[in-house]
Amino acid sequence: MSLKEECGVVGVIGDPEAANLIYLSLYALQHRGQEASGIVTRAENSQFHSHKGFGLVGDTFPREKLDKLVGSAGIGHNRYSTHGGKMVQNIQPFYFNTPVGSLAIAHNGNLTNAGSIRKQLEMEGSIFQSTSDTEIFMHLLAKASSPAVLGRLIEAIRSVKGAFSITLLSDKHLYAARDRFGFRPLVLGRRGAGYVVASETCALDLIDAEYVRDVEPGEILEISHDGEVRSHFPLRKTKGAFCAFEPIYFARPDSRLFGEDIYYMRKKLGRQLAKETHVSADLVIAVPDSGVPMALGFGEEVELPVELGLIRNHYIGRTFIEPSQSIRDFGVKLKLNPVASALKGKRVVVVDDSLVRGTTSVKIMRMIRQAGAKEIHLRLGSPPIIHSCYFGVDTPDRKNLLAAQKNCEEIRSYIGCDTLGFLSLDGLKKVLGEEHTSYCVACFDGKYPEKICRQVKDQPTDSLGGPGLKAGF
Amino acid sequence: MSLKEECGVVGVIGDPEAANLIYLSLYALQHRGQEASGIVTRAENSQFHSHKGFGLVGDTFPREKLDKLVGSAGIGHNRYSTHGGKMVQNIQPFYFNTPVGSLAIAHNGNLTNAGSIRKQLEMEGSIFQSTSDTEIFMHLLAKASSPAVLGRLIEAIRSVKGAFSITLLSDKHLYAARDRFGFRPLVLGRRGAGYVVASETCALDLIDAEYVRDVEPGEILEISHDGEVRSHFPLRKTKGAFCAFEPIYFARPDSRLFGEDIYYMRKKLGRQLAKETHVSADLVIAVPDSGVPMALGFGEEVELPVELGLIRNHYIGRTFIEPSQSIRDFGVKLKLNPVASALKGKRVVVVDDSLVRGTTSVKIMRMIRQAGAKEIHLRLGSPPIIHSCYFGVDTPDRKNLLAAQKNCEEIRSYIGCDTLGFLSLDGLKKVLGEEHTSYCVACFDGKYPEKICRQVKDQPTDSLGGPGLKAGF
Amino acid sequence: MSLKEECGVVGVIGDPEAANLIYLSLYALQHRGQEASGIVTRAENSQFHSHKGFGLVGDTFPREKLDKLVGSAGIGHNRYSTHGGKMVQNIQPFYFNTPVGSLAIAHNGNLTNAGSIRKQLEMEGSIFQSTSDTEIFMHLLAKASSPAVLGRLIEAIRSVKGAFSITLLSDKHLYAARDRFGFRPLVLGRRGAGYVVASETCALDLIDAEYVRDVEPGEILEISHDGEVRSHFPLRKTKGAFCAFEPIYFARPDSRLFGEDIYYMRKKLGRQLAKETHVSADLVIAVPDSGVPMALGFGEEVELPVELGLIRNHYIGRTFIEPSQSIRDFGVKLKLNPVASALKGKRVVVVDDSLVRGTTSVKIMRMIRQAGAKEIHLRLGSPPIIHSCYFGVDTPDRKNLLAAQKNCEEIRSYIGCDTLGFLSLDGLKKVLGEEHTSYCVACFDGKYPEKICRQVKDQPTDSLGGPGLKAGF
Amino acid sequence: MSLKEECGVVGVIGDPEAANLIYLSLYALQHRGQEASGIVTRAENSQFHSHKGFGLVGDTFPREKLDKLVGSAGIGHNRYSTHGGKMVQNIQPFYFNTPVGSLAIAHNGNLTNAGSIRKQLEMEGSIFQSTSDTEIFMHLLAKASSPAVLGRLIEAIRSVKGAFSITLLSDKHLYAARDRFGFRPLVLGRRGAGYVVASETCALDLIDAEYVRDVEPGEILEISHDGEVRSHFPLRKTKGAFCAFEPIYFARPDSRLFGEDIYYMRKKLGRQLAKETHVSADLVIAVPDSGVPMALGFGEEVELPVELGLIRNHYIGRTFIEPSQSIRDFGVKLKLNPVASALKGKRVVVVDDSLVRGTTSVKIMRMIRQAGAKEIHLRLGSPPIIHSCYFGVDTPDRKNLLAAQKNCEEIRSYIGCDTLGFLSLDGLKKVLGEEHTSYCVACFDGKYPEKICRQVKDQPTDSLGGPGLKAGF
Repeated sequence: MSLKEECGVVGVIGDPEAANLIYLSLYALQHRGQEASGIVTRAENSQFHSHKGFGLVGDTFPREKLDKLVGSAGIGHNRYSTHGGKMVQNIQPFYFNTPVGSLAIAHNGNLTNAGSIRKQLEMEGSIFQSTSDTEIFMHLLAKASSPAVLGRLIEAIRSVKGAFSITLLSDKHLYAARDRFGFRPLVLGRRGAGYVVASETCALDLIDAEYVRDVEPGEILEISHDGEVRSHFPLRKTKGAFCAFEPIYFARPDSRLFGEDIYYMRKKLGRQLAKETHVSADLVIAVPDSGVPMALGFGEEVELPVELGLIRNHYIGRTFIEPSQSIRDFGVKLKLNPVASALKGKRVVVVDDSLVRGTTSVKIMRMIRQAGAKEIHLRLGSPPIIHSCYFGVDTPDRKNLLAAQKNCEEIRSYIGCDTLGFLSLDGLKKVLGEEHTSYCVACFDGKYPEKICRQVKDQPTDSLGGPGLKAGF
Repeated sequence: MSLKEECGVVGVIGDPEAANLIYLSLYALQHRGQEASGIVTRAENSQFHSHKGFGLVGDTFPREKLDKLVGSAGIGHNRYSTHGGKMVQNIQPFYFNTPVGSLAIAHNGNLTNAGSIRKQLEMEGSIFQSTSDTEIFMHLLAKASSPAVLGRLIEAIRSVKGAFSITLLSDKHLYAARDRFGFRPLVLGRRGAGYVVASETCALDLIDAEYVRDVEPGEILEISHDGEVRSHFPLRKTKGAFCAFEPIYFARPDSRLFGEDIYYMRKKLGRQLAKETHVSADLVIAVPDSGVPMALGFGEEVELPVELGLIRNHYIGRTFIEPSQSIRDFGVKLKLNPVASALKGKRVVVVDDSLVRGTTSVKIMRMIRQAGAKEIHLRLGSPPIIHSCYFGVDTPDRKNLLAAQKNCEEIRSYIGCDTLGFLSLDGLKKVLGEEHTSYCVACFDGKYPEKICRQVKDQPTDSLGGPGLKAGF
Repeated sequence: MSLKEECGVVGVIGDPEAANLIYLSLYALQHRGQEASGIVTRAENSQFHSHKGFGLVGDTFPREKLDKLVGSAGIGHNRYSTHGGKMVQNIQPFYFNTPVGSLAIAHNGNLTNAGSIRKQLEMEGSIFQSTSDTEIFMHLLAKASSPAVLGRLIEAIRSVKGAFSITLLSDKHLYAARDRFGFRPLVLGRRGAGYVVASETCALDLIDAEYVRDVEPGEILEISHDGEVRSHFPLRKTKGAFCAFEPIYFARPDSRLFGEDIYYMRKKLGRQLAKETHVSADLVIAVPDSGVPMALGFGEEVELPVELGLIRNHYIGRTFIEPSQSIRDFGVKLKLNPVASALKGKRVVVVDDSLVRGTTSVKIMRMIRQAGAKEIHLRLGSPPIIHSCYFGVDTPDRKNLLAAQKNCEEIRSYIGCDTLGFLSLDGLKKVLGEEHTSYCVACFDGKYPEKICRQVKDQPTDSLGGPGLKAGF
Repeated sequence: MSLKEECGVVGVIGDPEAANLIYLSLYALQHRGQEASGIVTRAENSQFHSHKGFGLVGDTFPREKLDKLVGSAGIGHNRYSTHGGKMVQNIQPFYFNTPVGSLAIAHNGNLTNAGSIRKQLEMEGSIFQSTSDTEIFMHLLAKASSPAVLGRLIEAIRSVKGAFSITLLSDKHLYAARDRFGFRPLVLGRRGAGYVVASETCALDLIDAEYVRDVEPGEILEISHDGEVRSHFPLRKTKGAFCAFEPIYFARPDSRLFGEDIYYMRKKLGRQLAKETHVSADLVIAVPDSGVPMALGFGEEVELPVELGLIRNHYIGRTFIEPSQSIRDFGVKLKLNPVASALKGKRVVVVDDSLVRGTTSVKIMRMIRQAGAKEIHLRLGSPPIIHSCYFGVDTPDRKNLLAAQKNCEEIRSYIGCDTLGFLSLDGLKKVLGEEHTSYCVACFDGKYPEKICRQVKDQPTDSLGGPGLKAGF
């Protein structure tokens, strides 16, 4: 699996330990973005304090930096590299002055009309300093006509299209907003007299906050320092479109969705997969770490033993470079170690969560075969991915999506397994359940919840053309 | 589990890619030491090239550094912080001039007469620059009387007591030596026309080297650039004493011991543990990562499902600091995430590899109980540890060994589980088998293979007393 | 002397070595700002390349960074810390997108209506990212209505008041502009087929460029890649007001002003000072380095020997910290070493360029007296400074200007010299000459060339008040 | 001038502020070595505390490092890169354990039998970790037979030949020792109840210590914590040989030698030079900074004005790299700025302290000529250097000494001046005076005070040959 999530967001208000809580929440959401992190805090009606940096949360915020982030409210952000390169200007949250006071914003998602809005704003004299979609919200908020922050936020989110889960901090309030489809998750928690919003429940768990409810698709929450929570629905209502890949892959296994642990949803996907694609075999192994719950479910369903046939190496380091090719292609062997005695002479079911480009799968199959497996049966806990995502997942172009280019037998032959089985779309829907929400499964069936117009031209960092695209201080 | 290994060693000769092979081998042996790494290489009869640094192998050796390590022979070392603080002088390999040419040495183990030898050497005018046992070998080699490297190495290892697995590089040969008990592992592999020695077979696997055999206890191998391997046994023969904690905990699961995967040895330990300490329960979970194979074995034996009830967080970062205590004791929650739905209302068997201080276990039990488990049955895949190790494992003093201070019921009560079960010493021996070697199980039964005389006084970094213990440039 | 200049600027067009030439020019202008430097380059109609950093030019631009700054045009900037703290966002040049293409700008000076313009721009939705006056030009250029860069630049400079010498780079042209009073210097040079603009002639000398002429007060030069130079005068003409402190102190002694070396102008100031304040003495010494030419002139005029009575220590390092006060106040002794044998028992004339706060002078007098001088006669090469500067020199508030608070005898007594003499304002004017330009001597006589309205409130970084003053990514 | 000094040393005992005093003394001695610095301190009978680093003293010792250097005694060292590369192991002081307690040592000088002693020590089993001569003292002290530190120090200095000024710290005493010729300076000062030794008096001045006397050639001072000073003369007496280049070039102008300021000795050298090499001219300029006092003396003698015709740029930065040669050879122009109006059309006497390779002089002459000088008369304040130094000055090989290869007219022609004049050896001796000491002038006349045997072979870092010369941890 090689899909990439686009970030995690956090907001805290009404707690003197705001910075520490945000720090821990970002740590809990580290799986949603490891490139960079930032925290902005403030006391009511007071100045911002900010610290940001590249790297893991635990390395970016030493104690002396954290201690300077005073104030009882704040927001935080984990970034996964997507649009734009590794520029320090792209690290969120962003903070800025407006006629209604200074604001800070953090954003998880992907706007589908970013390019055209940006072009329009620049024609009117706005100066962009980053290549991030998030900066569009900044300028919309700064140029809106409403005399209040809430009014400006409503103006801004009415102007944009696509996926967004936002936390916004003014001098009086913490705001949390979600697009009308609810592509990306955002949950509300309570901790003592204060409130917390975060991308996933696992952040609430770590800081002992109580889960209150999800922020609804299309909802804006306005939370004051003294704990008043107001709800607004300024966007036209529509059918929900929660990203199916959150339960399949992105969310942490101990996060909960509609009251159910992600871990169990994945085990059920594994069981369903087993029902649909059963094969006679000796044992089940997972491609770690994401495939493990599915493999456990698969094994239970067909009563086969589950073994640690592949062990992930967790000591790779940040800058590991493969040595010269004159030795050999070490391929996937640096990250996964096969346990030969578990595989030798065996008919092995290999469970992975999904198939994107397939390049890593080819290497894994070869490695398992070299370890002596007699048969390899690859099973994927999701349907074939045949369409790109425009709503916050960094899928490759269609021409690099293996399942968009080859049929099932061609894939099997290319990957090098003996049999290949995907979970069916119906099976997926059945397991996820539609009693709570409806899902966006556009990457599987191409039915995008919102029209994608001129997307290619509209990509902000490719479209502005001419000289000097990159702005900067 | 909180025992700490003391280092991994590697040596390569007869391969133009020596530095790359050592680099990859150290990467494969990263689990044996993460504080610091070093590589020293040379061409035959030529100068040394060296690079060392604190941190993971993958971060310490960027391409431009690796490219400078030319030569067809070299040795490498991964260090775990033990004696002495985090001093750059302690990073191995050490290299130095002697009357028989320049030498480089790397060492895994712990000398039991380090203090007295060091004192003697200093009286004779030797100047120590590190607090490492390894430097004792340096001075012994420099002051030996033999006109040849091999003769000096024999003199040196005859002078010391305790555990050592050494790689030594002269201008003509690579030497690999192991103490006469064979406390620490050391294996010989072949790769094309060259040879590799390494602490574990997993290093051979990564670089596609073929396992030849173990370096024998008490053996010195002398390997030339053109592939001649000579074996010497200069030490008095004795009964072997291979550290039982290598298969229980230290070795990587995909390494092999006497032809068997460590993974399977651990599964068998889990099965044996289940036979000895069975209890009525709903499911089995492991304390990851080391307890997982034992949990799988346990589950198979008693036909209980194995669940991922605890998920390890692999994004901790190198400098993560727990926030102020005014929030709360986050305890173990930062590293392990409980999956509530797997635990709620269940009778849970928790499998861990061993019990040292018990402090982490207390927190894990509490966390599992807070997640809703009805009963907790802690099972340890090794006997109670009641004696310190003087042969290369960094065990705490006896007063900090939980099992040395409390009886089983006291431990259970302190840890906070409902029942507690250890693997028996007989069960351990039965699983490990004595057909290949005899094991050192002194930490369980106190029967040290070699007399430990005046150990406390003899500790090198505490004993020299007087002013100015720490030497340095 | 402790006045601080506000920056040096450079621009090059029509030379394939633009980055190297800018680098060398900034090096030559290092005395105008040592906090930070930046270079932005581009080929015609192409993207910007930029590198910036804190520290000296020679440290900020290693070869590999410089090599990436391709293109035949570029601008550069040396910054002296003034408004705003040490923020990376304040390092110039700034570059940004506008409807007429991307632009880069560097600025030397100080706007007197910065606060009110900034407030107005923010009300209209502009988002400021720095605390620099220069950003005001950015937003004015981005929001101007003209369809051409030149037109927008004219709109921008018509909106601002105060001192500015600007270099601006579009995709077609290099612009150089100077306020209508010409407070700060800016000269035009030619080098082969290309052109160079720079704050002082010493930059032209280092790169072997030929001095062409000064950019005139109120002039905009528009220089194309193929060497066409167009001159525009869009501002109302007025009497010039060139800062008198440029020849007195700021400019490098080997720079030329109206064809004369600054070194000689300073020697003449010393001669005039001697004529006005002659005293019977044994020798003349300078407060190095700036007082040396004046001391030489003084000595020549009165035929007294000039000695190196004080030697400056040039090895201070960037982070030198005085040790604990329990030893003593080392005062000025760390920077200046008295040569006792030159001073002992002598009647000494001490020549310095000017007197600002006087704190250092007190220490120097005491040190000279401790070295054994019999009499000390302090002579200053400029009149008493009694008014603050609002046009680009970082003078302290009036309450910290010694000469604004005390009369001459009080100053003498406070400083601790036997006699004290200032150059007269008439003497200053006579030496500088008014045949070429008229000077701003407002710091001596309070006659500001342009009205300073509500300056205190208008300070950009103090006025925006409320929360969240500091904006940032 | 491009000769390089070899280090400055300091020692303090009996002052609770020892680290601060050493720090300031090293700062005052920065001109004697800018590559690296180190300080080692201790309380009586207590452990060492040490900090070292590359760079200027002011950058190497931030407050938090300095605060950890507790104890009332200590030694310090400034290093100039000479033998061996830029290795951290070469930064002094060195500290180490011996049978008579732990010692720390710092050394200024150059041993002429380093290679042969080192070889002998290695044959006996000593392991060298640096390429520094100083380490030879370490091993000699560690292997000596005397039961007392003083006895061992006497054994050690009796074994070596060449130049050394040493500070040595034991648990009871501070030792200061100087070779029997007294090549390098070393002075004793008193400060309150404590004592200070340092390379030059300027260090005493900065910390307000009183100059007591010079450490005599061949003397060992042993100073206790309670202020007892014992003097020992264990070496055979001989005629002194104080390096003439200390007053000519190395020493700071405000240091004193035999009661006279170096500044005045240099002025007298300038006067003598003028007497010997007078020429009709318009003005005198110096090559700054070292030539300035000589130029002042020269000008006074012949009653010519002295001008700042060349101004040194003090902002070069630590890593300045000249840009690509495609622009031009910037030569010396980056460091020295000619003041054209002082030179144009003039007959100029240029005073420099000495001529070594001559490469810089060529560039300076060309630059002065390009600035318009009509005639250039180069005058050197020392005789022609025609022999290498083996006693602590880093002179080039004879083949690179201009005056060893060419006669006076050839030099003049090569350098490009109109006339050339050196100070005579007699003139030099007359000015320096022989009433206080006799000088080593071997670089001028080749009469070495001590026989230099097989020097080339004996160079430690070139001679050991074979593989693995460089030792290291």
